[in-house]
Amino acid sequence: MPEESSEDVFKIIVATDIHLGYGEKDVIRGNDSLVTFEEILENAKKHEADFILLGGDLFHENKPPRRIMHGCISLLRKFCFGDKPILFEYLSDQSADFKHCQFPTLNYEDTNLNVSIPVFSIHGNHDDPSGQGNLCSLDLLHSAGLMNYFGKTTSLEKIEMSPLLMQKGSTKLALYGLGSVRDERLHRLFVHKNVTMLRPKENQEDWFNVFVIHQNRAKHSTTSYIPEQFLDDFLDLVIWGHEHECRLEPEWNSSQNFFVSQPGSSVATSLSEGETVKKHIGLLQIKGKNFKITKIPLTTVRQFYMENVVLSETELDPNDLDIGKKVEAYCSEKVEAILQKAGR
Amino acid sequence: MPEESSEDVFKIIVATDIHLGYGEKDVIRGNDSLVTFEEILENAKKHEADFILLGGDLFHENKPPRRIMHGCISLLRKFCFGDKPILFEYLSDQSADFKHCQFPTLNYEDTNLNVSIPVFSIHGNHDDPSGQGNLCSLDLLHSAGLMNYFGKTTSLEKIEMSPLLMQKGSTKLALYGLGSVRDERLHRLFVHKNVTMLRPKENQEDWFNVFVIHQNRAKHSTTSYIPEQFLDDFLDLVIWGHEHECRLEPEWNSSQNFFVSQPGSSVATSLSEGETVKKHIGLLQIKGKNFKITKIPLTTVRQFYMENVVLSETELDPNDLDIGKKVEAYCSEKVEAILQKAGR
Repeated sequence: MPEESSEDVFKIIVATDIHLGYGEKDVIRGNDSLVTFEEILENAKKHEADFILLGGDLFHENKPPRRIMHGCISLLRKFCFGDKPILFEYLSDQSADFKHCQFPTLNYEDTNLNVSIPVFSIHGNHDDPSGQGNLCSLDLLHSAGLMNYFGKTTSLEKIEMSPLLMQKGSTKLALYGLGSVRDERLHRLFVHKNVTMLRPKENQEDWFNVFVIHQNRAKHSTTSYIPEQFLDDFLDLVIWGHEHECRLEPEWNSSQNFFVSQPGSSVATSLSEGETVKKHIGLLQIKGKNFKITKIPLTTVRQFYMENVVLSETELDPNDLDIGKKVEAYCSEKVEAILQKAGR
Repeated sequence: MPEESSEDVFKIIVATDIHLGYGEKDVIRGNDSLVTFEEILENAKKHEADFILLGGDLFHENKPPRRIMHGCISLLRKFCFGDKPILFEYLSDQSADFKHCQFPTLNYEDTNLNVSIPVFSIHGNHDDPSGQGNLCSLDLLHSAGLMNYFGKTTSLEKIEMSPLLMQKGSTKLALYGLGSVRDERLHRLFVHKNVTMLRPKENQEDWFNVFVIHQNRAKHSTTSYIPEQFLDDFLDLVIWGHEHECRLEPEWNSSQNFFVSQPGSSVATSLSEGETVKKHIGLLQIKGKNFKITKIPLTTVRQFYMENVVLSETELDPNDLDIGKKVEAYCSEKVEAILQKAGR
C-alpha cells in the first residue's frame, strides 16, 4: 500500500510524547520541543493527513510556561486552520464522545472555525487533568477550538470507552482512546474486569479498531504496567504512548492478534538508551481492514549518542601508576569523538 | 442620540478591570468574576455591539489559574463567534497595528474564524507582559484568535501610538490604546515629551478620537499618576481603566477639551469606598463627532456596602462601665443591618 490519495484511505500522522516545554529554560535547547512540533505539523500538511493523532504528553509540564502554551497555540492556528476540506465523515455522537468538554463538539464541525487538519489527542501523565475543575492543558486547546481532546475518564471505578467512529469512503475507523491513568490503578481495574471497550452494534467486523493508550508498556513491577494481553483482542492496532523509544514498526502480538506500534517521544528527555534511537513519527494509512505505517524521520531532533566503555576490554593497565589520569584521558577522547559525531 | 441601529453609529460596549479570577478560591465568590464577564458579553450580544472595548486587567493574576483561563476562553468562544456580520471597516494597517503579536491580524478578518463580536483590549497592571518572550495572558487569547490585543509598548524610552482606524458609514473612529506602564515611568516619559500620539494625515478633524488608558488617575504622589493635562487635547474621549470606582458619566475636562469616562471595575476587589458605588458598564455610541454613553447596570455583581460609625454621635456613654460590650453590640447590630440590606 504505497502512499496514495485514494478516497478510501485514511491518512493519519501519528506522534506522541512531544513534551512541549522540555528544557525550555536551556539557552541552547530551549526551543527544541516547539521546533520539532512544527516539523510534525509541517509533515501533516505535506502528506495531506486527514488528521493528526497524538498519544499524550503534548506538554512536558502540567502547567506549561506561558511562552510554551503560546507557541503551541500559534503553531496549531498556523498549521491546522485553512481551506483544505475534511474528507472523512464522523459517525458517532460528538456530544457524547466529548461530553467531558465544555464544548462537546469537534472543532472542524464548528461552522465558526475553518479547520484543515484536526488534531485528536489523549492526555499523558505529564499533562493530565488536575486541580479545580479537573482540567488539563488540552482542555484549554479544545475549548479554544484548536484540537479535539478525547479519552478523558471521570470514574475511578469503572472505565467504559466508546470509540470515535469515522468513515472515509469505504473504510470505517473506530478510534478508542484512554488518557493516562496511574498504572497500578488501571492494572487493578483491568484485573477486576472494570475496563470495557464498547463496540458499534452493527457490522462489527467491518471496523478497523485503533486504541491509543498512554501507560507503561515495559514491566517495571508486577502491577506498574499494562500487559498487552489485558487489551481486547478485537483491536487491530494499538498506538502505545508514554514509552520514549521509537518502535514505530508494528509488532505483532500473536496471543492478542493485534499489532502494537510505539511512536516514541519526539524530543529526548532523559539520558537513556531508548532515547538514542533515531526519532520518527508515523504516517498511518488505513484501507478497509489493512494498514501500513510509514516511518517519517524527524530532522530537527538533536541526536543522542551513548556508548558503553568497558575498561577491561581496553589496553589500559590497571597496575599502571598513572592509571587515573589515563582513564580520564581515554574517556575524554571517547566523549570528544561522540561530540564530533553529533556535530555532523 | 437614543440607541439606534443606524449605519453611521458605532455601538461599543465599554468595560474594564474585570479581574477574572479575583477570589477564585473563595467557596462562595469563586465564580463571581466569570459570571459578571458572561453578563458583559451577554450585554454586547443583546445590544448588537460592533465591538467590545476593554481597558485592561481582564485577569486578576499575571498567571491566571487554568480554570479561570479556561472559563475565559470558553466564554469568548461562546459569545464572540457566530454569524452576525461586522458592520464597520478597518482602515489602518493591521500588520503594523498588531506587529507586536505572533498573528499580526484582526481576528474577525481571518477567513478561518467566524467572529461576530470582536473584543479589543489593552493590558492592565495585573495582566501585563512579563517573562520570557514578554508575553501576557492577552497574547494567548490573541494568538488563539479569541480577541484583539493592542496598545503593547516595547520601547522603554519612547512611546509612539498609532491609532486603530475604523469607519462605520460616515463615522470615523481613531482608537488609541496604551497598556499599563509603571506610573512613574510613564509620567517621566510624558514630562520629557517622549509620548507621541500619531494622527491620520488626512481629514484630521473628521476623526472621533478615543484613547484607552490604564493608569492611576488619582494623585497618589507627585509622579505616581498621569495628570489628564498630559494627554493630547485633540482627543474627544478618554476611557480610563485601572480606577475601580464606576464614574462612567463622561466628565468634561475644560483645560483639555475632552471628556473622561471611567467605567470602573466589574468586580469589587477591595473593601474601599470606591467599590461600593453601583457597578455599570457603558454602551458607547458614536456618530460623527458626537457620542453618548449609556450606563448599563450589572446585575450579577455582589453589592458592597460601607458605613462610617462615629461613636461620639451616638447615645453611647463613654463613662459607662459596660462600654466595651455596648460598642460591640452596637457595631454588631450595624453589621447585621448591612448584611440584611445586602441579602435583599
